[in-house]
Parts: sequence; structure tokens; C-alpha cells
Amino acid sequence: MNGAESLVKTLLANGVDTVFANPGTSEMHFVAALDAHPDIRCILCLFEGGTSGAADGYYRMTGQVAATLLHLAPGFGNAFANLHNAAKAHSGVLNLVGDHATYHMRYETPLRGDTAGIAAVISDWTRVCTDAATVAVDGAAAITAARYANGQIATLILPADTAWGAAQATAVCAAPPALPCPSPAQIAAAAAALRQPGAALLLDGVALWGDLAEVAGRIAKATGCALLCPYFAPRLQRGHGAPLIRRMAYRVADNQKLLAKVPTLVLCGADRPASFFAYPGQPSLPEPPGCAIFDLCSPVMDIGQTLHAIAAALEADGLTLGPQDRQPLDLPPLPGGPMDLRKIGQAVAALMPAESIIIDEMVSSAPAIVPALQGARAHDWLNISGAAIGFGLPCAVGAAVACPDRKIVVLQADGSAMYTLQSLWTMARERLDVTVVILANRGYQILRLEMAAMGFGQMGRNAQAMFDVADPTLDWVALARGHGVDAVRVTDTDQFVAAFAGAMAQRGPFVIEVIC
Amino acid sequence: MNGAESLVKTLLANGVDTVFANPGTSEMHFVAALDAHPDIRCILCLFEGGTSGAADGYYRMTGQVAATLLHLAPGFGNAFANLHNAAKAHSGVLNLVGDHATYHMRYETPLRGDTAGIAAVISDWTRVCTDAATVAVDGAAAITAARYANGQIATLILPADTAWGAAQATAVCAAPPALPCPSPAQIAAAAAALRQPGAALLLDGVALWGDLAEVAGRIAKATGCALLCPYFAPRLQRGHGAPLIRRMAYRVADNQKLLAKVPTLVLCGADRPASFFAYPGQPSLPEPPGCAIFDLCSPVMDIGQTLHAIAAALEADGLTLGPQDRQPLDLPPLPGGPMDLRKIGQAVAALMPAESIIIDEMVSSAPAIVPALQGARAHDWLNISGAAIGFGLPCAVGAAVACPDRKIVVLQADGSAMYTLQSLWTMARERLDVTVVILANRGYQILRLEMAAMGFGQMGRNAQAMFDVADPTLDWVALARGHGVDAVRVTDTDQFVAAFAGAMAQRGPFVIEVIC
Repeated sequence: MNGAESLVKTLLANGVDTVFANPGTSEMHFVAALDAHPDIRCILCLFEGGTSGAADGYYRMTGQVAATLLHLAPGFGNAFANLHNAAKAHSGVLNLVGDHATYHMRYETPLRGDTAGIAAVISDWTRVCTDAATVAVDGAAAITAARYANGQIATLILPADTAWGAAQATAVCAAPPALPCPSPAQIAAAAAALRQPGAALLLDGVALWGDLAEVAGRIAKATGCALLCPYFAPRLQRGHGAPLIRRMAYRVADNQKLLAKVPTLVLCGADRPASFFAYPGQPSLPEPPGCAIFDLCSPVMDIGQTLHAIAAALEADGLTLGPQDRQPLDLPPLPGGPMDLRKIGQAVAALMPAESIIIDEMVSSAPAIVPALQGARAHDWLNISGAAIGFGLPCAVGAAVACPDRKIVVLQADGSAMYTLQSLWTMARERLDVTVVILANRGYQILRLEMAAMGFGQMGRNAQAMFDVADPTLDWVALARGHGVDAVRVTDTDQFVAAFAGAMAQRGPFVIEVIC
Repeated sequence: MNGAESLVKTLLANGVDTVFANPGTSEMHFVAALDAHPDIRCILCLFEGGTSGAADGYYRMTGQVAATLLHLAPGFGNAFANLHNAAKAHSGVLNLVGDHATYHMRYETPLRGDTAGIAAVISDWTRVCTDAATVAVDGAAAITAARYANGQIATLILPADTAWGAAQATAVCAAPPALPCPSPAQIAAAAAALRQPGAALLLDGVALWGDLAEVAGRIAKATGCALLCPYFAPRLQRGHGAPLIRRMAYRVADNQKLLAKVPTLVLCGADRPASFFAYPGQPSLPEPPGCAIFDLCSPVMDIGQTLHAIAAALEADGLTLGPQDRQPLDLPPLPGGPMDLRKIGQAVAALMPAESIIIDEMVSSAPAIVPALQGARAHDWLNISGAAIGFGLPCAVGAAVACPDRKIVVLQADGSAMYTLQSLWTMARERLDVTVVILANRGYQILRLEMAAMGFGQMGRNAQAMFDVADPTLDWVALARGHGVDAVRVTDTDQFVAAFAGAMAQRGPFVIEVIC
């Protein structure tokens, strides 16, 4: 057994059985070891941004760590942007990165680079293996690290000679250490704060879906507090039956209105809300003077135990959420006529099956589309948590691998889709059940809006050259087919309804380019 | 005037007039300032890997620094791989990167990240602006840094408030400090070493083309020494009339043969040769025991002055290179019949006009194609110096912007092309005269070869899944047209000859997918 084999066996022994891969020369022994273990599923992505985004989507839907297999320094660089999204989502990702043999690193070669340096910038945990005999132990530590603190980025760098050198054994992961919880006094204070009229509880992470969202709903029922979540929360439970948790807005001015009369904002799993960017003359923070920010439980503390403790302190455990505490089913009628983004939202809501997973990289199109989806059938909703564009298509790959029986719907801006369009091929290769709606406004529309928000009016040649994706326009039907995915272009609502209904009725990847 | 305007004016005042851009929200004031200066050419790339690769290609062909305009941390991450190639090529690149306002950085927001941290991993010079009033001075220092040491990566990070805050003036660049040269005694020793029978001079960087290649040719004529260059040298002068400089091989075993009887290897502008990767049981270094490595002039010393000093010490200045010292014109006949990579090389050599620029990201196809090009009409040849794939198409953008009157021919592996295919759109937008030959072997053929070189034989399901880009195959005609570039697929040699001849006879971007 060599180091690479000891690592693959350690992955399998500890429940890591999915690898999103984009290997290079420095990973050959690891490829050979994976090849000897067909019980690991290796999914090829044609660009490293696809691997990291897929591992993020996989974790969000399963809570399980997938591995990425990456090439040394520049390969890791390509994965960086979607690792940023994963880090902001507190997704557990295990990066396995090859590197030059330890004794070869001293020589200047084309691919010599600071792999550990770039890894450390975005990873919560980074280790460089130094000996084949300890690769298994290092691998187990890496898995533990990726599972720690509600999910972390753990990067294990394997110099080639630690992969091909002799190893004896596999290793078993330690359970991650327990996460800190607020003290009983803090819990009591939070419970009292939430009883104040107008108080709000800002939730994030695992508090936003499943059993913990139910607990949050009972807390709201017991106190009358508002439940909020950040605009960029990684995963939301939405649609029919979801406990009522209000998503905060993108613009700080809208959040100022939302919080205008909130006396206390209790944070559970969430960071203090702040403006997405600073703008001249606008505040960084949305809360009014006098609003107390109660930072009860940070994103890396024990969110579940904290929520249960608050509920217990409020004697809310026995409460049952009624229809008035949940989102009612409110399907819009099927729209028709000229194209309009609102109608896209209505059609998706009307046609999307229950338990769909929506991946939202709509960017500027979101405000027009999102409202109609509020009362759709029950679904999960994944956001671009780190705002690093090129998120949607890779995340869809990971979510589809994680949940093969659920329909994935990607609501995808065109400019952002271009960053990682290679993921379309992986959807075709793996027969993933993903419907991609490309919202083709043929430009970086969000930048036009941001430019206006900064106070600029008319735009000239250079700004237009940098904001428009026109002359030529992109042809998403051709791009999709080039990657092996069937596609259609629609220019009116009836065409979209027909195309989307067709996509919902069949399995496999499909792209709908909406000219909007 | 605000900080952004002072920077744009500083760029123009110091001869930086080309910006490869992929801006985001943190760069809005910079976009506005560029918009007010239409004498700066802003070229939109639809992915940051396109911007950094284009700036690299632009520098290689002009020796002038272009700027990239990048978004904060994850945007910089996307640019990393081609900055790696640029750094290995010693190309001067000026990265301008926005970031959160200084006072906003303390808050956790989606795009908050360690921009300076990732920049420092790959940059020779990194500075974070702290005040709008000094942005111009910082910008001038960054330009100087990018021009230093034969070309460096200089990254200037502009927090948003330093862009929108008040500034007074522009700044003028200092000339970069003089580079160190070998001492007269070292020059004399090198000259003596080169007179030894069988001695070789290993050249890199600016020594490989133009006047300095002529000087190198005279040194060889005076001494009989061999002139060598690294396999991954960034820019070669090749074809008819080029001084005879032999390119070293990719495999260490081949370089062992090449150096087997070399008593002294003098390095001028080149690093000590080493194997591309380490392989079990193979040496890292190619030279035989007893071969003296004379590290005369490192890549960041004054290569030109060093070469001239050697020539002077050898009294070689007055020598004239004759036909026997230069590559003769040796055009192959036009091939026909079934497809064969050797014939692709013959057809390109026969049809390519003089002064073409070849961009080589052929990877595994290179050994079959390169020989026929040896005697083609005079041309320049750009290599993937850092071996970070996704180099060819972005580099072609930069080379074509740099040299609008020359034909660019990209010889491009398909797997690598997928990393940065978005550059095709920029070729169409900017009407760049680029012919892209996609060598579609539908897999990472180099990894199959590397796997074999590591001693592995048969491959199973997982290895095949990671090496083949099949099921589905990519359709490069569709991918090109999706980006607005016309394309054709060819399956035999006659079709290729017709398509390539047509591409040579017209201007503008064109893709030829060669099924090989």
C-alpha cells in the first residue's frame, strides 16, 4: 500500500465516497488509487471552479463532506472563487491537492508554486503531508476538520512522494470537538429579549431548514418575535409549509426600513447584518440607533443546541405550528403573453414539483422573479453566499449528485453563468436532473444598477464596453449543445411555459435561454 | 478629481493605455474614471482568467505593461492561474483590484475576503492603498514594479473609499532601478567556459528573440558552443532566419541525452534545468555528473548587458551570422489524406504567413506537430511557461491586441481550451485576427502519458472517467459559435488544409476543430 492508497481507504472508511475531480500530473498516484476503488464515485469537472462549487452544493444538501481532487497551485487558484462561496456558506469541503515531490520542490519548474500559501488564504485548515506513512492520519484529520464548526474548508496537500511512498494503514477520524454554546444566563437573556414587542431573531445556517426551522417557528409562536434570515443565507426552506422566516433585503436602505422599529436583534448562527458594499454617504449597518444587537450564537457555535435551549427557556417545546405559522400554498396561474421576468417566476412556481431545489444566481433579475415563488410547492433554495459569481452551475452539479431523486432548477444570470459554464458538460456526463434557466439580459445588469447606486448617470463607451455582453451576443443554445446538453431559446411567455413544463416532465439536464 | 481618476490619469501619463477588464461592484468608481478617458482601451473579458492571460500575451509581444481590472478576493482567484503563467514568463502585469471601503472591511459581508493575502501569493509587489490622496503615487509605484526585473506581477488593491475620495494630482513613474550584472571576472570566466569543446549556453527570456538572439548567435559562432533554451521558454523566435537555438525537451530522459557530453552549462536568463515533475526512480536534474552548471545571470538580472559583455569578451561583436548560422526556409509540401497530427504541423507550416505568432498549448500533441514548423516562415512562438492550462486563448487575445497586423495561430489542446473558452467571445468582440486550431483528442491525453510514465498500465472506470472528455464529446463548432466565432470541424487532412488556408486568407477570429 502506498500513501495514496492509504488515503483513499481512509476516505472510504470514514464515509467520504464522492470526489469531484480535476486532476493533473501531480495527482497520478492518487488517480491510480481511486481507480482501484470503484466504490468511490469520481466525477470529472472540466475546470476546478466546477469541483469546488459542486462540493459546496453537495454539502449543503447532505451535510456530508465531499472531496475535491485538485492540481497544485494554479489548479487550486481556479477553485478559489467557489471555495469562497463554500466558506461563506460554512460548507464542509475536503480539498486534496497534489504537489511536487518534497525533494523536487527546491528546483524552479513551471508548476512550482506556493500551494500551501494560496490554500491557507481560503482554508480553515491546511496541512502539507511530509511522509507517506502519515498520509492516512493526515487525511483523517482533514476530514475531521472539514466536519468541524458546522463545516469548514480543509485542504490537504500531498507532495507526490508522499503519494507513492510506502504506507501501512488507514486511519479513523476523530469526532469533531463539541462546539461552544451560550451560557444559561445568555440563553435566559435572549429569551427575555425575544419577548420584547417588535424583537427579531436573525437565523442562519442549519437553523433555516428542517427540524431547527420548526424550533425557530415555535420560538416565534411563543414570543411573537419576527424570524429573519440574511439575504445571502446558504440554504432556505421555502414554499408550502415552511415556517415563516423573512429574508432580509439586498439594499441597506430596505433593511433600514425592516429594522426601523426593532428594539433588539438576536443573532443565532448569523453574523451581524451589514451592507453588501459600502456606498458613499450611506451607512454600513442597517439597524437604527438604540437597536440592541445581541450576538448570542455565532455561525461556528452550536446553533441547534442554542435554538433548543431558547425554546426550552420559553417553554415553547410543546407548541404546535398551525397553518397561520407556515407558508400557505399559493400557486400563481400560468402566465402568457409578452416576456416579463415576473411571469418567469410565476411559471416556475406553477410548474415546479414539490421537493425541487432552486439554485439562485439570478443576480439583478431576482427582485422580479422571487416573489411569485413564495407560495410554490415545498422546496429548498440555495443562495450564492459568497457572491462570487460562477456559483450556480457547479452548485447544481453537487446538489443533483446529492439528491438524485429531486428536480434541480437553476435560475441563472447569463454573465455569471459564463464563469463556470463547463459544469454543463458534467451535468450531461452524469445525467443529472437539472433544468437551467438562463436569464439572458446580455450584460452585467447588476453593475449598471450598482453604478447608478454610486450616483453615476450616463455611461460612455468604456463603461458600456465593460457592462454589455453584446456585439456579439452569446448563444446559449449553442453553448449548451456544445457541452452536450439540449437547449431551447424562448422569447415569449408561452414558449417559456411550454419549455419549462417539458423540462419538469422529463429527467436529465436541459437549458432554457430566456431572452429578457 | 477622485482617487480613481488620479489613477487613470497616472496610467495614461506613464504609457499604460490598455486595460483587460472584468470589473465588479467594488470597481465602480474606477469604471467611471475609465469611462471619462476613452483614450484608454478597455477590453472586456468574460472571466478573470481571460484578463490575466491577455495581459501576459500583451507583455510578451510588446514589452509593455497592460493593466488588468479585477474584482476583490474571488475575482483575483479566478485570475490566479494565468498570473502564474505570466510570473513564470517574467511578464510585467499590473493588477488593479477593488476592495471594500476601508471602514467597511470590519464587517462580515459576502465578498469580504483576504484580497491582499491571495495577491501576495502570486505577486512580486503588492500594495493596499490607504488614502485617495496617495493613489496616484501608489499607481506609479505599481507601474515601476511591474516593469522591474524584466517584468513582474504588481498588484495594487484599491479599497472603494480610496477610489471615491478626493485626490489632487497624478504621479510620474520612477525608472526601474538598474538590474545587477555579472562581474567582469564572471564574464571572463563564462567566456572561457563557452570556449570549451561541447560547452552550452542556456538562454531564456529576452535573450531568445530580436537583437539579443543575434548576439547569442555571434557568441555561438565565436566559440562553437551550443545555444539552448528551456522547453517552456515564454517566447521564441523561430522559423526562417532565426539564429539556431535548440529547445530542450519535455522529458528529463531526453535532456539527459542532450546534456550527456556537455562539460559546462552556462545559464543566461535561465533557471537551472530540472525535470518538469519528479518521477519515482528518475533524477530531478538532467545534467551528467561532472557537468559544471555556471549560473551566470539569473532571470531577474540584466540579460542583455550580460550577453553583450560575453560577446565583447569573446571579441564576437564584429561577427556576421551567415546562412549556416540561421534556420533555413524549409516549407513542407501540403499534406493530404487521412488525419495525422504530423500533417497538421506540415499544413500550418506551409500556409502560415511570415510574422505569424504561434501560441502553443498543444500539450500532448506537440511532439507530432512541432518538427514541421521548424523551417516555416519567420514567426514568434509563445509557450505555456507556467504549465497552468487555460493559457492559449487568453494569451492570443493579448498578443492580437498587441500586434493587430500579425496573424495569431493558436495550436490548442481541447481539454486545456475548456479552462478559459470565454476568451473566444473577446476575440469576436474585438475583431481579433486569431485562428484557433482545436486539437480534439477528447481527453486529457497528457495525463494518460503521465500515468504511463509513472508506471501504471491498464486503467479502470475511475481513471477513465477522469481522463476522457467523452460521453458526451464536446462540440467545438457549437462552443465557438455560441461565443460569436465562426467555426468548422475537420476530420481529414484535405479539409484541414482548406479550412486553414481559408483562415489565413481572411481576417478575424476563426476556430477549426480537428478530430484527431
